[in-house]
Amino acid sequence: MLKNYLMRKWSMDFNAEIEKRCMAFNKHWKKYLPEGIPAELYDAARHIALGSGKRLRPCIAMLACESVSGDVENVLPFASALEIIHNFTLVHDDIMDKSDMRRNLPTVHVKFGEPTAILTGDFLFAKSFEAIHDLSVDLSMFKELDYSLVKCVLDICEGQQLDIQFEKRKMISEEEYFNMVQKKTAVLFELSARGGAIIGGGNQREINALTEYGLQLGLSFQIWDDYLDISSDEKTLGKDIGNDIRNGKKTLIAVHTLQNATAENRKLLDEVFGNKKASDDDITRIFTLFKEMGSIDYARNTALNYNKKAKDALELLEDSEAKNILERLADYSIQREK
Amino acid sequence: MLKNYLMRKWSMDFNAEIEKRCMAFNKHWKKYLPEGIPAELYDAARHIALGSGKRLRPCIAMLACESVSGDVENVLPFASALEIIHNFTLVHDDIMDKSDMRRNLPTVHVKFGEPTAILTGDFLFAKSFEAIHDLSVDLSMFKELDYSLVKCVLDICEGQQLDIQFEKRKMISEEEYFNMVQKKTAVLFELSARGGAIIGGGNQREINALTEYGLQLGLSFQIWDDYLDISSDEKTLGKDIGNDIRNGKKTLIAVHTLQNATAENRKLLDEVFGNKKASDDDITRIFTLFKEMGSIDYARNTALNYNKKAKDALELLEDSEAKNILERLADYSIQREK
Repeated sequence: MLKNYLMRKWSMDFNAEIEKRCMAFNKHWKKYLPEGIPAELYDAARHIALGSGKRLRPCIAMLACESVSGDVENVLPFASALEIIHNFTLVHDDIMDKSDMRRNLPTVHVKFGEPTAILTGDFLFAKSFEAIHDLSVDLSMFKELDYSLVKCVLDICEGQQLDIQFEKRKMISEEEYFNMVQKKTAVLFELSARGGAIIGGGNQREINALTEYGLQLGLSFQIWDDYLDISSDEKTLGKDIGNDIRNGKKTLIAVHTLQNATAENRKLLDEVFGNKKASDDDITRIFTLFKEMGSIDYARNTALNYNKKAKDALELLEDSEAKNILERLADYSIQREK
Repeated sequence: MLKNYLMRKWSMDFNAEIEKRCMAFNKHWKKYLPEGIPAELYDAARHIALGSGKRLRPCIAMLACESVSGDVENVLPFASALEIIHNFTLVHDDIMDKSDMRRNLPTVHVKFGEPTAILTGDFLFAKSFEAIHDLSVDLSMFKELDYSLVKCVLDICEGQQLDIQFEKRKMISEEEYFNMVQKKTAVLFELSARGGAIIGGGNQREINALTEYGLQLGLSFQIWDDYLDISSDEKTLGKDIGNDIRNGKKTLIAVHTLQNATAENRKLLDEVFGNKKASDDDITRIFTLFKEMGSIDYARNTALNYNKKAKDALELLEDSEAKNILERLADYSIQREK
């Protein structure tokens, strides 16, 4: 009876629930991104950060905290640190990838120049560590969370470096691919959920369950991104697919095809995949090969599989509205369009 | 009698004393820069860091700790954090300045490419915060030092941004110049001495005295650098002077000349200073103007003045070998050649 009542209560408007938390978060984290002098640096830090953005990591941290009956207010400085780190990596990644646009805005290095963009990333990095100093937790928990954040950034750097290097290599194993994605993307999701659970006062079983949720969700999220990039581009065979193939980008789709190709197809891959001068016809041939090899479906199914694991991890938690939203958040992450 | 004995004891070989501390430091901080995977990232982090380097900041922290009767072993993780932060800023600054060489080695971005160099700076930044987690101090002191380090990096980013922007401006006041130099260079010297004193268990008077020493030494150090750049280049009027003048770099020398120039000289400055296409003859005319305006002597005297203030700040401390070496370190910093 109570369960039925709760289930009804929880069949809330998912978007409204996320929006509510985003608003609380946006209100809080603005204080770490004030106007200031030198104006160029402060403006550049605000440029991408205060634009649109899904605020996925803060929402995960907030919901993880709520799901163990914690006070969501307590997690906001930590959630801010996560989002600021995410933004710092975006600013630096955009320089490395020579990306011109981000969230429908010119990237920081395009708008403010590369030297200021490098400094902006550094500045945001430091700001994230400033943010967690506002946590109202005991000192040993502060030290633990601070250390986790440091380790997380080290992993992200390693993951991004691997991603860059993989482009130059002919063959990558699935194990190498998953190691790269785990470091580049999943560790920050993992820490979002884990940190939220710790700050919320969760017990060890709850912390472990939410850590697992974050990790699996992060893997699912990145692989779905690989899948979306190629499937949303399918009709037009647009710029993104062409660039990824010409750059030899090792998505799970490419890794699967490279590993399972026949000798004949391998010849085609050797000629075209990672060849900056590949023609549009060549790109179409590789794309067709991806489809024929079942690699696009394989990536999709792998993402769905990790997504299920994420939701399964939540089973250990007591039922709650926050748990329900975390489940729906997992669903959302594999429905979203770019 | 005792004083005479101590004074004799302290008329030690300054270089040997510094070398002894550098060796202890180098042995310690290597553990934060191991070999690892991805090799390119770890190798790049080790490339500049484990090369030569004066290790000024770690030595200041160690001596500050010793000067308040602290155990120098305790300060090594903090000293490592300082040196790693210094190296992170060098790696990123070299990208911004398009510098090819550093410490007689190709810069990280020249040897490993720009994307890896950006990541290497980020990686070192995170490593510095990893290092201070090894401090054996109580948790509230850890939190204080961690926060000081965060604030220091924020200042360094602001200072570097100001330095970049100043190049584009016609006129900079001395106040603006000193604010920039304080943030870009002096705050890290200040924190080196302050942190060493705190970890060494100094009382508030000692901490304040050493904080003042670090700040004044940092200002002196940077202004002496400006002075050295131009005076050591005088005979040849080499590449550095030419570049600085063509880029409109606002050293104290340039700031002094710009502020005090007659209308006629201002016309020359407007034409040449910050003009990328200035001829070698133009460069010579500006250099001559710097000399005629007394700006080179002014910068030299200002550096000497700050240096004296640094040594004066030490007077509050009990006499000790470490205090003596800190005084000599100040002398050294205005005798050094490039």
